[in-house]
Amino acid sequence: MAALPEKAKTLLDSPEFATIATLNPDGQPQLSIVWVERDGDDVLVSTILGRQKHRNLERDPKVTVLVCPKDSPYEYAEIRGTAAMSEEGGRELIDRLCTKYTGGERYAGDDGTDNVRVIVRITPTKVVIR
Amino acid sequence: MAALPEKAKTLLDSPEFATIATLNPDGQPQLSIVWVERDGDDVLVSTILGRQKHRNLERDPKVTVLVCPKDSPYEYAEIRGTAAMSEEGGRELIDRLCTKYTGGERYAGDDGTDNVRVIVRITPTKVVIR
Repeated sequence: MAALPEKAKTLLDSPEFATIATLNPDGQPQLSIVWVERDGDDVLVSTILGRQKHRNLERDPKVTVLVCPKDSPYEYAEIRGTAAMSEEGGRELIDRLCTKYTGGERYAGDDGTDNVRVIVRITPTKVVIR
Repeated sequence: MAALPEKAKTLLDSPEFATIATLNPDGQPQLSIVWVERDGDDVLVSTILGRQKHRNLERDPKVTVLVCPKDSPYEYAEIRGTAAMSEEGGRELIDRLCTKYTGGERYAGDDGTDNVRVIVRITPTKVVIR
């Protein structure tokens, strides 16, 4: 396990978007843009049960997240780690992320769907700061 | 091989930064921020001989690039593909990228170093547009 340097904490606590990488069944990295939150030295991301990211992480928990300040792309934090997933608190997390990134109180994107929200908890094994 | 949709071409032709994923020896995705250029349906990235990205791609050519507009992070292009590398034209590529992203005529970051510039040519196998 690796501790998060202060710069990574600051980036993760600000409403900067992150890129997340998981591994597809053929080993090809899959990338997407996500909202992130920090819990101590862990990084939390929200996904949906059955979505590609979720299926990939069920099969292989290796995950890497990069957070890059929109206005300063040459400085960023790359966090490599291992994911553990849980449905508990999944709805609360997506609502908190919605508040952090949009100011809205409640995430409405799942309304009228059968989406089950999953918390992806990433425990860092290696952090690189540029 | 996959053709690049127009939206991906537009993003790659604009000076938007990209996130690139390669695979470390232990299979962990390695992410970094890069300048990108397009050559037809291929994506070109510059790296340095012996750098982690270069070593990773020599071992495993699977590579994925995500380009996300700085001012519209919910729309992005994810390009999964295979990398071929070449030193020929490596200096010219980093200079063109420098012009595209900074307006400068010549990339000075390698001055006084033994850096050998390598072109990473990514041929897309799958493109996802959000």
